[in-house]
Amino acid sequence: MRMSGVLVLIFCILSLLLPLLITTASSWCSIKGLPLVRNISELPQDNYGRGGLSHITLAGSAMHGLKEVEVWLQTFSPGSRTPIHRHSCEEIFVVLKGSGTLYLASSSHEKYPGKPQEYFVFANSTFHIPVNDVHQVWNTNEHEDLQMLVVISRPPVKVFIYEDWFMPHTAAKLKFPYYWDEQCLLEPLKDEL
Amino acid sequence: MRMSGVLVLIFCILSLLLPLLITTASSWCSIKGLPLVRNISELPQDNYGRGGLSHITLAGSAMHGLKEVEVWLQTFSPGSRTPIHRHSCEEIFVVLKGSGTLYLASSSHEKYPGKPQEYFVFANSTFHIPVNDVHQVWNTNEHEDLQMLVVISRPPVKVFIYEDWFMPHTAAKLKFPYYWDEQCLLEPLKDEL
Repeated sequence: MRMSGVLVLIFCILSLLLPLLITTASSWCSIKGLPLVRNISELPQDNYGRGGLSHITLAGSAMHGLKEVEVWLQTFSPGSRTPIHRHSCEEIFVVLKGSGTLYLASSSHEKYPGKPQEYFVFANSTFHIPVNDVHQVWNTNEHEDLQMLVVISRPPVKVFIYEDWFMPHTAAKLKFPYYWDEQCLLEPLKDEL
Repeated sequence: MRMSGVLVLIFCILSLLLPLLITTASSWCSIKGLPLVRNISELPQDNYGRGGLSHITLAGSAMHGLKEVEVWLQTFSPGSRTPIHRHSCEEIFVVLKGSGTLYLASSSHEKYPGKPQEYFVFANSTFHIPVNDVHQVWNTNEHEDLQMLVVISRPPVKVFIYEDWFMPHTAAKLKFPYYWDEQCLLEPLKDEL
């Protein structure tokens, strides 16, 4: 009886807090109230549970209602990296600071990516990833952060993640919404509850 | 007789030069031979006949075969500006250096743009232009260059240019291919001659 009383109390507190949490998340995700010109230093920045990453969505789907293009500012501390992954959108990188390695397997017609080619990427360089090619960007410079502007088409991004370069394409796991889209894209589902 | 001889000579010289010109232009425009990772300092840069502008296409439609997204690095010297224009693609700006003014008329439902709103844009700021809104970016800072990364969807861009803010939308003039796309997009036409 005592136990169920505690449970009822917890339920009541959660019921009271839930609308507050949803309101906070909604205002974070909503375009309403955002100024047209935004100071990048004041935009929400997070690692979204990935050590060594700093991600800022400058303009995009979930927060700004864009449908065709999205831009991220990402900083990788030494040794940190993206997962091995592919997506069917176009992607362009502009390296602002630091250096690192792009691993790229151009073998979407094979059963698995296979050993990737390595490319040195550096400040003031640009490159793009062919649609569906499996790739990974790694800050292999021990001394400096790697900072890049990343542009993708058709947001929000739908990412297939590989555990290694020899995992079959069919076994790659869809991560959607992606890390930084989770809060805003799952919000409408919560609202429907 | 003498006159026609000179004409024949000019014709012969042009016939000899034409394939050379086409080859040069084709290799400029073709993705073949371009390294995947490109040093931005080594990319073709031009003002395309517009005083005060420096334009570099980092990755895009005409040169790199992209279909969904294109990125430019543009620098406007003090006092220089874009035309007053609109386009039906999405556009995101990231200001890297300097400052200036964005003029934006959110009145595509009226007969003409009308007096635009003014927004101060500055280094480390970002903004995007709603689809079809008439706008102009102007380096209104007398002392510094305004440098921006510009991202557009659905390249190559189709731009409608206005002479002033009170020109009817229906009178705005289509400029296609746009300045920096002319050489590459007109090339296939020449090849067909």
